[in-house]
Amino acid sequence: MNEPVNLDAKFASFSEHWAPRRVASYNGNDIRIVKVAGEFVWHAHDDTDDFFLVLDGELDIELRDRTVTLGPGELFVVPRGVEHRPVARRGEVRMINIEPGGTHNLGDDSPQRPVIDG
Amino acid sequence: MNEPVNLDAKFASFSEHWAPRRVASYNGNDIRIVKVAGEFVWHAHDDTDDFFLVLDGELDIELRDRTVTLGPGELFVVPRGVEHRPVARRGEVRMINIEPGGTHNLGDDSPQRPVIDG
Repeated sequence: MNEPVNLDAKFASFSEHWAPRRVASYNGNDIRIVKVAGEFVWHAHDDTDDFFLVLDGELDIELRDRTVTLGPGELFVVPRGVEHRPVARRGEVRMINIEPGGTHNLGDDSPQRPVIDG
Repeated sequence: MNEPVNLDAKFASFSEHWAPRRVASYNGNDIRIVKVAGEFVWHAHDDTDDFFLVLDGELDIELRDRTVTLGPGELFVVPRGVEHRPVARRGEVRMINIEPGGTHNLGDDSPQRPVIDG
């Protein structure tokens, strides 16, 4: 049976960037928390939307035609197939990310770490 | 194309309880915000998990064998098929709830309001 998740406690349990922790599962989707800093890579998910909710810090989600900036308490869904690059230029960002379980479609040379249970 | 969502601004736009607003969509699932106070009804969702993330206040999710209490920054997923009753006994609660789009399976006599775009 599922257990309640305290996000602050989960965030306190790790320090690596771009290393998502799966803290829960919803209908086969991972509810992930992640700390990020600096630039990720341009990518798109052909089969899924990509959900971001920023809890701390300020995240730029660069799209090819604009940049969406999210602060604490702000969310954005990148539609499937849309190229994007998450960038944290102004300090560490803590966020919730939702993707289907097992989503690892960026290629072996990407900076994405495997999702681990956290 | 999607737009970023500021949760505080969305919460400021309505005051009714148990009247979820759909603020985004992720792979056909509604990302909903809702203000609640008092008791909901016992129910289960046979076809879907039910995701709760509390942002303000304290929510009891009563299960048949225990009660899960969530404060700000705490989340819980009620597995599909599991009977539960959300209750806010100690003031208003603001939360994010994720369910498949169109989930209205509580019957006509439930207090659940239709989900509206907000």
